[in-house]
Amino acid sequence: MEKKAIIVGAGLVGSLWAVLLARRGYSIDVYEMRDDPRKAGFIGGRSINLAMSTRGWKALEKAGIENKIREVAIPMKGRMMHDEAGELAFQPYGKEGQAIYSVSRGGLNIELIRIADQYDNLRFHFSQKCLGLSLDDNTVYFEDTRAGERSSAQAPLIFGTDGAFSAVRRSLMKQPRFNYSQQYLEYGYKELHIPPGPDGRHPLDKNALHIWPRGQFMMIALPNVDGSFTGTLFLPFEGSPNSFEHLQTDEQVTAFFHRHFPDSIPLIPGLLEDFRANPTSALATIRCLPWCHQDKVLLIGDASHAIVPFYGQGMNSGFEDCSLLDGLMDTHQDNWSTIIEIFNQDRPKDANAIADLALRNFVEMRDRVADPRFLLRKEIEAYLHEKYPEDFLPLYSQVTFSHIPYSQALAEGLAQDELFDRILAIEGIEENWKANVELGEVFRQWLREREG
Amino acid sequence: MEKKAIIVGAGLVGSLWAVLLARRGYSIDVYEMRDDPRKAGFIGGRSINLAMSTRGWKALEKAGIENKIREVAIPMKGRMMHDEAGELAFQPYGKEGQAIYSVSRGGLNIELIRIADQYDNLRFHFSQKCLGLSLDDNTVYFEDTRAGERSSAQAPLIFGTDGAFSAVRRSLMKQPRFNYSQQYLEYGYKELHIPPGPDGRHPLDKNALHIWPRGQFMMIALPNVDGSFTGTLFLPFEGSPNSFEHLQTDEQVTAFFHRHFPDSIPLIPGLLEDFRANPTSALATIRCLPWCHQDKVLLIGDASHAIVPFYGQGMNSGFEDCSLLDGLMDTHQDNWSTIIEIFNQDRPKDANAIADLALRNFVEMRDRVADPRFLLRKEIEAYLHEKYPEDFLPLYSQVTFSHIPYSQALAEGLAQDELFDRILAIEGIEENWKANVELGEVFRQWLREREG
Repeated sequence: MEKKAIIVGAGLVGSLWAVLLARRGYSIDVYEMRDDPRKAGFIGGRSINLAMSTRGWKALEKAGIENKIREVAIPMKGRMMHDEAGELAFQPYGKEGQAIYSVSRGGLNIELIRIADQYDNLRFHFSQKCLGLSLDDNTVYFEDTRAGERSSAQAPLIFGTDGAFSAVRRSLMKQPRFNYSQQYLEYGYKELHIPPGPDGRHPLDKNALHIWPRGQFMMIALPNVDGSFTGTLFLPFEGSPNSFEHLQTDEQVTAFFHRHFPDSIPLIPGLLEDFRANPTSALATIRCLPWCHQDKVLLIGDASHAIVPFYGQGMNSGFEDCSLLDGLMDTHQDNWSTIIEIFNQDRPKDANAIADLALRNFVEMRDRVADPRFLLRKEIEAYLHEKYPEDFLPLYSQVTFSHIPYSQALAEGLAQDELFDRILAIEGIEENWKANVELGEVFRQWLREREG
Repeated sequence: MEKKAIIVGAGLVGSLWAVLLARRGYSIDVYEMRDDPRKAGFIGGRSINLAMSTRGWKALEKAGIENKIREVAIPMKGRMMHDEAGELAFQPYGKEGQAIYSVSRGGLNIELIRIADQYDNLRFHFSQKCLGLSLDDNTVYFEDTRAGERSSAQAPLIFGTDGAFSAVRRSLMKQPRFNYSQQYLEYGYKELHIPPGPDGRHPLDKNALHIWPRGQFMMIALPNVDGSFTGTLFLPFEGSPNSFEHLQTDEQVTAFFHRHFPDSIPLIPGLLEDFRANPTSALATIRCLPWCHQDKVLLIGDASHAIVPFYGQGMNSGFEDCSLLDGLMDTHQDNWSTIIEIFNQDRPKDANAIADLALRNFVEMRDRVADPRFLLRKEIEAYLHEKYPEDFLPLYSQVTFSHIPYSQALAEGLAQDELFDRILAIEGIEENWKANVELGEVFRQWLREREG
């Protein structure tokens, strides 16, 4: 087969995947609906900052740009919880030295496009909106969003990396027996800008992901390299008094922030302007199956598995798709029939697992992180991991700091829930738990049951 | 508001709903993609016979045609299981006198259209394919499938009764935050014709639904009024040796039937022709939410909740939608804003429940009905219902012979599963169980727990 492919979508996953294929000598044409971000600038305003973690770094390493991105990534070592009185509590994500990294989506995307564009065998075509595919003859149709003229392109391999609203997926959906689901949260989000402090420095601890957990809703903030933070408010669209529906006037917004996030008010001088100007965006989980059409078309990243942002794994899981496919090419070379079959067989269960975990983590972030018993669990988890490194790796670490398949991590996490139901039921566990004999007994009993 | 509505789709639900609205004086225009079945004949070949049960009859009664349909409906009092040796076993569906009724889809649809067409305030427009809606101005666009010309129509109320592949739903899908899912079974089905016997009479007991349960697959047959049966083979598309993929040649089909359904071979003289000529069709579950757009557009029946056929509740649940809406009109007259809000709030959970129950019943029909312990459970269920009529109604009866909301029936069914886990664990329950003292104790204990 000719080593030639079309990639539809030059977002994070599309441009990374382009690099990985170009490195192997494939002739690549990448089509992107938006204008070239290197010239047009990156359109922001609706994108939560990215939290790069182990799975993402691995893919960047394969693409040879890990170090370059590390220079502009800000480590976040844990969560900093802000209560209504402005009191802070810190909860580390992992062991000493472990962190997730705040990265700018636009900056990372531009960097990936630059790297990709250095390959002679790779061509970018911007401002090209995909209109659909003709699956019989491997043709993709485009419309130039500026000039309006239409064109088409053909290749033996077509990759759909065109995100949650994928046009490539829309063509696959017309095939018989295509499974598809889109489920929206009843929550929306709005970005709020936290500028640098008067000294140009970060106005909050920059090495933490800040959370204002309020039970049914929350605000978060992630650091940017310029000293600012990007804040994001997550709130029900309607129904509750604490919903976007009831934040229509400046007075309502002000009263809401005074009541629930008083310590954030001095941090967001443009609160009312941001609130009016920035859109209220929706959050969806998208699943489908198959991810492919025969051995010709394959969906990667959000195009086949868009998830909510609460585990920070959207980009990481898309990048892991690329790593896994790259690994399959190591084993099966250019045998795409086999590569696509294996990938479509093995990967969707992991995508489903991280979709479920991300939904579950929303409850954790907005509600449980404010619960002393949850924080106690996190402390005991860290302790058990330190004491029994071979036998216990907390779920969060499995997802964030390992390459364990997501589906395995989810199963493990459910077993860990059961363990902590027992541990937290131990009488007096709150006090001096390190000296509690029962803790070790319960843990070892749980281990035995799992091995048995 | 003007009492005027458009109904898109003149299938079973659409034509019944047209009758119920026309009775109340609404000016109704019904648009249907297919040609008029009164002239064109009803296109069959892919439709499993219908099993009318209590929920369906109630809606027909409201439309004033219950008696007319009863005349051509064949009562099926239970399941007749055929094993590999051709041995028969009968298991009643309910109490003495209860039955589900085999009805011809085409015959019922034509009858409903005839009844509807008697209203002066109702107009049918056949051969009109819906192209989509303009939601802002309540306009529906059509294309004449014969002449090709396009037209549009407007009304304050638009009902989408256009089935699993609803064009009305496709327009709602473009609204923000529309939840949607389509999930296909890995099984297909193929219709096989069982003609009347030499004497013109039914070649099998006509008062039963015949099942050939074979674990991972099955065949069923439902009686028709002309002495024939409609047989349907349900088989995985691929993967297993017993799949459509491996039934490509006449030899393969013959060998497969000789091995698994030997007693059916003399019943299906056209087996090989049918197998070649009839399509292998797919089975989907479709869910969405909301079912409406504001107080203007509402989806009813398969358009909002298409289910697999294994509980015989597809048509019945669609007809129940109509009964419920009719009941809401009794209470709220023409206040469609309220009617649609309540219906969209209350009904989807029941549609989800019957979707789940239908998937679950496939396993029951193809596998569990051949298990002596399952049949024992059914016997004990009937006994408990007879002895404690106030306290125990089997799940199947709740779904089929009552108007209990499906979601409540499903919850009840899960509790009944738990009861029978305990009952079937009683030592020696297989023998002389009516005299078993423990049975009553376990049942009363279960009752007490539920009341407590």
